[in-house]
Amino acid sequence: KINADRLWQSLSDMARIGPGVAGGNNRQTLTDADAEGRALFQSWCEDAGCSMGLDQMGNMFAMRAGTDPDALPVYVGSHLDTQPTGGKYDGVLGVLGGLELIRSLNDMGIRTRHPIVVTNWTNEEGTRYAPAMLASGVFAGIHTQDWAYDRLDADGKRFGDELARIGWKGDEEVGARKMKAFFELHIEQGPILEAEGKDIGIVTHGQGLWWLQVTLTGKDAHTGSTPMHMRVNAGLGMARITELVHRIAMENQPDAVGAIGHVNVYPNSRNVIPGKAVFTIDFRSPDQAKLDRMKTRLETEAPQIAAELGLQIEIEVAGHFDPVTFDAGCVDALRRAADRLGYSHRDIVSGAGHDACWINRVAPTAMVMCPCVDGLSHNEAEEITRDWAAAGANVLFHAVVETAGI
Amino acid sequence: KINADRLWQSLSDMARIGPGVAGGNNRQTLTDADAEGRALFQSWCEDAGCSMGLDQMGNMFAMRAGTDPDALPVYVGSHLDTQPTGGKYDGVLGVLGGLELIRSLNDMGIRTRHPIVVTNWTNEEGTRYAPAMLASGVFAGIHTQDWAYDRLDADGKRFGDELARIGWKGDEEVGARKMKAFFELHIEQGPILEAEGKDIGIVTHGQGLWWLQVTLTGKDAHTGSTPMHMRVNAGLGMARITELVHRIAMENQPDAVGAIGHVNVYPNSRNVIPGKAVFTIDFRSPDQAKLDRMKTRLETEAPQIAAELGLQIEIEVAGHFDPVTFDAGCVDALRRAADRLGYSHRDIVSGAGHDACWINRVAPTAMVMCPCVDGLSHNEAEEITRDWAAAGANVLFHAVVETAGI
Ligand SMILES: NC(=O)NCCC(=O)O
Ligand SMILES: NC(=O)NCCC(=O)O
Repeated sequence: KINADRLWQSLSDMARIGPGVAGGNNRQTLTDADAEGRALFQSWCEDAGCSMGLDQMGNMFAMRAGTDPDALPVYVGSHLDTQPTGGKYDGVLGVLGGLELIRSLNDMGIRTRHPIVVTNWTNEEGTRYAPAMLASGVFAGIHTQDWAYDRLDADGKRFGDELARIGWKGDEEVGARKMKAFFELHIEQGPILEAEGKDIGIVTHGQGLWWLQVTLTGKDAHTGSTPMHMRVNAGLGMARITELVHRIAMENQPDAVGAIGHVNVYPNSRNVIPGKAVFTIDFRSPDQAKLDRMKTRLETEAPQIAAELGLQIEIEVAGHFDPVTFDAGCVDALRRAADRLGYSHRDIVSGAGHDACWINRVAPTAMVMCPCVDGLSHNEAEEITRDWAAAGANVLFHAVVETAGI
Repeated sequence: KINADRLWQSLSDMARIGPGVAGGNNRQTLTDADAEGRALFQSWCEDAGCSMGLDQMGNMFAMRAGTDPDALPVYVGSHLDTQPTGGKYDGVLGVLGGLELIRSLNDMGIRTRHPIVVTNWTNEEGTRYAPAMLASGVFAGIHTQDWAYDRLDADGKRFGDELARIGWKGDEEVGARKMKAFFELHIEQGPILEAEGKDIGIVTHGQGLWWLQVTLTGKDAHTGSTPMHMRVNAGLGMARITELVHRIAMENQPDAVGAIGHVNVYPNSRNVIPGKAVFTIDFRSPDQAKLDRMKTRLETEAPQIAAELGLQIEIEVAGHFDPVTFDAGCVDALRRAADRLGYSHRDIVSGAGHDACWINRVAPTAMVMCPCVDGLSHNEAEEITRDWAAAGANVLFHAVVETAGI
C-alpha cells in the first residue's frame, strides 16, 4: 500500500498554490499560479529520482526508469490546473497519486520492468481556454498544435503566448511518446459512490459532450422610453434558450444533462435593453444518439425562439467528444486491484470529460474513481477524505505495478 | 433663433471626448473622459463671459448675469455623462443647447432681467453609480450627500473618492441655490415624435421607476457529473425571473415597461452550473398604482420561482422615483414658444428619468424634447438631425428669455 499520510500532505501542500476565495483553488491554466504548481511538482519528482520531459504543449512527463530498456512505459496522471473557483482534488489527486506510487516503489525498493511515467496534462479544465482537455487532445491527434496555440482567453491572450510566458513550453514533439497503457485516478465529481457507500468506481465508459456557444444579436435601447413592442431584447432570448436547454435535458432523462454556464450580456447596464448576449451550453450523455439528438433539437428550436423575438442567432461548436468505452484489459486490471485490496467497488460512467478520454484513442486506457462529499466538484467546497484518496491511489498502484511487471 | 451650425459643431466637438467603439460615446461619470468633457464645457462658458460655480457633488453652474441684482436666475441644462455605449446627444444636447442660448444672447446683445445659469448635473446616467440622477437628487434633497458619496461602482470605487480624483469636487453647498425656473431640453429617447412627424414634444409628465437588484444563490457544481435532480441552478432561476419581468410588463400594457439590463453569473464557467446570479430589473410606468403593482407582483412571484428551484433570493431596491407632473406655468411657456416659432408639437410623457424630474421638487420645472431616429438611445447609433436639435434649442431659447424677462 502507498503512504496515505504523505499523499494527503502533498495534496495539502499543492493547495497552498493559487488559493481560492473560499478554501479551494484558483490555479487556472497558464497563470503564474499554474507555473508555481508545476515547479513544485517538478521538484518533488526530481527528489523521487525521476527525469522530467516537457513537450511543446507544456505536458509534463516524470519518468522512473524500468529494468528493460526496450519496454514501453506505463503512464499515469491527470492535471494540476483548476477551475476559477475549483477544489483541491479535481485533477490534482490523479497527478499526486501517481507521484505517491513512485515514492512508494522507492520506499519498497521495487523496480518494475516497464518504466512508469507520471503526467501533468496542460489545460484540462477548459475554462480559460476552450475546449477542455486541450493538450491531451493534441497529444491524441484530435486537434493540431497550431490550432491549440491560437485559442484565445476572454482577454484575447493566445494560448501559445501564455504557455511561453509562464516558461513551460518544452521542445519535445507532442504525441510522439508511445504508451503501454494509461491509467487516470480522479475524484468522481458526482454523488453515486458516496450514496452507495462504495470505496472505488471502475470507470468503464465516459459521457460524450457537445459544447455550444450562442450569440444573440438584438438592439440595445433605452429601457424606459422604448415601448415593449419595439424591443429586440437579447437578454429575453437568452432566458428562453436557458429554459429550452433545461427542458431538453429533462426530457431526455435518465442519462442526459445540460446547462448554461458562461454568460455575457451587452452593454450590461441597468437601463439598457440588452442588444447582445453570448452564452455557452454544455450538453452531455453517455448515449451517442441521445447526445446528438439534444444538440439537433437545440439547433432547431433556439433559432425559432430567436426569430419570434426578431433576434439574430449564431450557434458555434466550442467543444465535442463522443462517449468513450475504456480498454477492457485496463478496466480488468483496475477491478482485480480493487478486489485484491478488499475495497468495495462498482462500475461507473464518468460524467465529466477527462484526459483519459482522449488518451484512450492512442493507448489502452482506463480510469479509477474515489467518492467526493455530496458529489460536489467545480466548487471550492469540493471535499474527499484521506481514506478515499488512499483507496484510489492503492488501486492505481496495484494496477500499474501489475501492468509494468516486476 | 439660435445659431444652429454653432450648436451642431459644439455637439460634434464634445463627442470627440470619450469616443465609443461604434461612433458614439463612452464618457461615463467621474472617469478621466468626464473630467475632460467638463473642462471643455467650462472653457466654452468662460469664452461666453459666464462665471462658473461648482458644488460639492460636482454639479457645474455657468452663470450669465442679469440686469436685476435681486432676481432669481432661470436655470437650464442637463448632463454631459454618457452610458458605456451611449450616444452623442443624450444629455449633451440639453447642456450645449443651454450654452448656445447664452452665445446667441451675446450675439444679439440682449440682456435679461434674471440671470441665466447653464447646469451640467453629475452622474445622470446611473450606470456606473446607481441610482441615476444622483447629483440632482442630492440637490433636491432626495438623497443625503454622504449617502451619495458612499455609492460604489462595480470595482468598489467610492463616488466621493472618484469625484475628488478627477478634480471636480467643488466647495459650494449642494441645493443652496434658489431657482426662478428650470428648463431641460433632451432628445426623446423614444419613437413617438418621429413617427408622428412632430418637431417638438412638450413634456407634461415623467414615468416613475423602480430599480430592483436580485441575488439568487444556489450551488455551483459540475455540469457533467451532477444529475439534473441534484442541481440548484441560479442561472435557470434568473432565466425564469427574466421571463416573469417581461410577462409583468406585457400584462400591464399600455403604459408599462420592464427588462433586465445588468447580469452577472458566478463562477461564469462553461462546465459549472451557476451557483449565484446577480441581476437588475427596471420597471416603469406613468401610472403610480400600476408601477407599484408591478413591483409587488415581482416581489411575490420571484420568491416562488426561487423556492421551486431551491434557490435563496434577495431583492433590494436600487433606485426609485414616483411619476412626475411638471409645472403648468413652465409647460405653457414652452408651448407658447413652440407656437410662436411655428413648430409642430404635441404633449408627451417622458419614458426616461431626467434631472428635471428631481428639480421639479424644488423649483417650477418643465422639459422640451426633440425626436431621435428610430427612437434609439442608450446605443452608440443614437442619431438626431441638425434641424431637430435647432428646433429644440429655439424653443428652449424663447421660453427661457420670456421667463427671464428683458
Ligand atoms: N474533469 C473535469 O472536470 N474536466 C473538465 C471537462 C469537463 O467539463 O468534463
Ligand atoms: N435620460 C436617461 O436616460 N436617464 C437615465 C435614467 C433613466 O434610465 O431613465
